[in-house]
Amino acid sequence: MNDTPGSCEVPARLPADSPRAGSHVLRWQPGFRWDGAPAEAYKAPADHWCGIARTSLAGERGEQTAFHVRYFEIAPGGFSSLEHHRHEHVVVVLRGRGEVQMGGAVHEVSFGDVVYVAPDEVHQFRNRGEEPFGFLCMVDARRDTPVPVV
Amino acid sequence: MNDTPGSCEVPARLPADSPRAGSHVLRWQPGFRWDGAPAEAYKAPADHWCGIARTSLAGERGEQTAFHVRYFEIAPGGFSSLEHHRHEHVVVVLRGRGEVQMGGAVHEVSFGDVVYVAPDEVHQFRNRGEEPFGFLCMVDARRDTPVPVV
Repeated sequence: MNDTPGSCEVPARLPADSPRAGSHVLRWQPGFRWDGAPAEAYKAPADHWCGIARTSLAGERGEQTAFHVRYFEIAPGGFSSLEHHRHEHVVVVLRGRGEVQMGGAVHEVSFGDVVYVAPDEVHQFRNRGEEPFGFLCMVDARRDTPVPVV
Repeated sequence: MNDTPGSCEVPARLPADSPRAGSHVLRWQPGFRWDGAPAEAYKAPADHWCGIARTSLAGERGEQTAFHVRYFEIAPGGFSSLEHHRHEHVVVVLRGRGEVQMGGAVHEVSFGDVVYVAPDEVHQFRNRGEEPFGFLCMVDARRDTPVPVV
């Protein structure tokens, strides 16, 4: 097996230069901002969400992926819409602590935890702490419109 | 605007319990392991890669997403295949430092940096440091087979 460390020899050969096709690196900055990817409003203003910024990291910037990657950050006291939809969410926590409600269950989550929200599950992300709560959220590029529970 | 902190009132109302539809949380563990998601071999053994473990986090566990989320960890000295393919990669670095070659360019990356590998770009991830280099990698669920550059 060559999946163990300590025995790797990086091939000296490197590829000849090839035309660049749009590959790039978005640089992370302290404070969880990315050069060239502005933090924006989560949704149009409404009373069913509060204190969230949304940063589009991939999939909505000219890429052809079947998915979008966004970073959401919820300020202390903030919360996302309590909603459901057919499409699934995959969330990976990067910053702080928060809680996610999925159906009748509430889970506290922090760095590295992976949250899977199944189709049609009523869900909400909340920050009851004193530090920002930030997470990546991946979704299908083609997806249905969320339905808030009001 | 309700996207500013300090003025949020979490609605007291919570949803009635609803049937659970497969939603779950995969708990992160120190050492970048996840309960219930084993680290596995990156690929079948070959001399064009070395020192990589692969953990499938979402999309290959019964979900219906159009994408897969994997965590790759490259041991010191390790490297991924130098390869190209039509499908795109979106990578978010979680652990350590590494370098990515895309076409003729080499980029050093660390926590939070987002790497987009465009279609057909020859690319390779390498760890020339002394700590593990770990990153999330998102890809389309339906994708072509990588072609190693040998």
